[in-house]
Amino acid sequence: MHIHIENDASAPQALHLNMQHLQQQLDAHPQLRGHFTLSENSNAAHTADFLATSDILWSGRKLALDTFSAPRLGWVQVMSAGVEQWLAHLPQGVTLTNASGVHGDKGAEFILMAALMFNFGIPGFLQDQAQRLWRPTFGGCARGKTVLLLGVGGIGAAAAKLLTAQGYRVIGVTRSGQCDADVARCIRIDAIDDVLPQVDVLVSTLPLTPQTEMLFDRRRLDLLPARAGIVIVGRAAVFDYTAMREKLCAGELAGAVLDVYPQEPLPVDDALWSTPGVVMTPHCSLDDHSAYLEGCLEVFIDNLVRFRSGHPLHNQVDVARGY
Amino acid sequence: MHIHIENDASAPQALHLNMQHLQQQLDAHPQLRGHFTLSENSNAAHTADFLATSDILWSGRKLALDTFSAPRLGWVQVMSAGVEQWLAHLPQGVTLTNASGVHGDKGAEFILMAALMFNFGIPGFLQDQAQRLWRPTFGGCARGKTVLLLGVGGIGAAAAKLLTAQGYRVIGVTRSGQCDADVARCIRIDAIDDVLPQVDVLVSTLPLTPQTEMLFDRRRLDLLPARAGIVIVGRAAVFDYTAMREKLCAGELAGAVLDVYPQEPLPVDDALWSTPGVVMTPHCSLDDHSAYLEGCLEVFIDNLVRFRSGHPLHNQVDVARGY
Repeated sequence: MHIHIENDASAPQALHLNMQHLQQQLDAHPQLRGHFTLSENSNAAHTADFLATSDILWSGRKLALDTFSAPRLGWVQVMSAGVEQWLAHLPQGVTLTNASGVHGDKGAEFILMAALMFNFGIPGFLQDQAQRLWRPTFGGCARGKTVLLLGVGGIGAAAAKLLTAQGYRVIGVTRSGQCDADVARCIRIDAIDDVLPQVDVLVSTLPLTPQTEMLFDRRRLDLLPARAGIVIVGRAAVFDYTAMREKLCAGELAGAVLDVYPQEPLPVDDALWSTPGVVMTPHCSLDDHSAYLEGCLEVFIDNLVRFRSGHPLHNQVDVARGY
Repeated sequence: MHIHIENDASAPQALHLNMQHLQQQLDAHPQLRGHFTLSENSNAAHTADFLATSDILWSGRKLALDTFSAPRLGWVQVMSAGVEQWLAHLPQGVTLTNASGVHGDKGAEFILMAALMFNFGIPGFLQDQAQRLWRPTFGGCARGKTVLLLGVGGIGAAAAKLLTAQGYRVIGVTRSGQCDADVARCIRIDAIDDVLPQVDVLVSTLPLTPQTEMLFDRRRLDLLPARAGIVIVGRAAVFDYTAMREKLCAGELAGAVLDVYPQEPLPVDDALWSTPGVVMTPHCSLDDHSAYLEGCLEVFIDNLVRFRSGHPLHNQVDVARGY
């Protein structure tokens, strides 16, 4: 069988998988040794040629697969967690596995940081600092505060563990209302309206699917108390950023720690840059380039072993639910 | 015996101890019931009268005790952790106990937050945001990074526990080089120069004493790597703020999360307000007004029981070492 590696020429070298590296990993596994031929490409002009003869694809860049002829292709391993752009172009019969889990360690630390920043009023104190205002407030501990955690996948489950260990009361939100993560309780996504008024910190790790798109429209954002802070590390299109910005300007939210945006890079003239209470990181806070490639490769090698032995793959995207 | 309560008229009501509240606490303890008379005052014009006949003083404000006649006074319980202003005016033979430990829970959370903020480059991203610059960086996890924790008392020990649980390598610094806290190792305060080049986050919870004053002068600050962030929640005078500010402006430090300042409130024209990489909170991040009075009262009641039974008091300030 042939595995083709498609790298993104514009990505940093640390995210390129080279054939030799993969070959070493294959050689190290008795179940994988000698069973695969490999190719590698980062020139978009040659992608079609490689796909024509590949059985398995490792891809470091987004491809509209249905615009290629890939008659033998059965499985694609991608390097991202969010896959909505892949799903829009996925030929029938092709299995898609993502990088879910690889962002967990760093993502959980970021979410914990953001939750603590709200507890200590950092978004407000940054505004005071800019105006040279000395206005102390003497609130309580973070412990015992309520975090509503939208999505309890790789990132969400890792965050739940840290937040719960820190004494937060974590309410997980999933499609089914069930999860194995370290949460106080878990609710269905269609039951969130009832709990929004209790929330101190709203964290979204949600993927973009038909069910999550614009889930947090103006009406739902209005259900949050003014003390609530919002952390968004999943897909931006789950939130109405305009409504969120207007609420921040009106003092109807405590702040927002954001890593993702409706358009990236965020246009220079976007009002979000200077919205009071917004702390921005440029879509990098969950990615650790020193460990990212190895993390994805671990998922891939594990799946190759499962593939060879006929077991179902891990991180397989469910086309119907969209993640 | 007579216990006098001196409240600070300018402090919020949540920090005033009233006689009825203390009386209830005394009545609830068999060893304390019926042994004390009480008085309460918040008018500075009457303080001298009360001190003239008091055996024990609970004080919510700073007093230059040596300017009063207090012939019976043997013990003072204060509501702060830092006591350098008390020590400068403490008559011989008067025992001083402080509020060490009361700031631990909230202080530890603040320190963890600040350490994480450095890991995620928040001080730098705040500057980028102000200039509408999109410049992602893809660094690693906080786990495994090195925190040098100056002072391992009530706040420091609580912080060590959280930081260590989070995977930080915590090096404690104490006068003796020994501590019971949850640290990877503990060193003497006069051995810090050797470890400064390894530090990712420098946290100071140090009190102000002759040994700590200006401990971090320009020479010592210069031993820190440019990636290091500084968190100061102990006394400000331990650091040369001017040198620190100059290093921040020169990009020789990653940032500073500060709760204390050489002068408070920080003067409006102080250059620190707009120094790149500085995140400021106005000396409030360790005090939880909803729990502070009860925390101090717990220390006091415990000590009253120890006092009655002839045991050494907890939180007793060592006049020679200054904390």
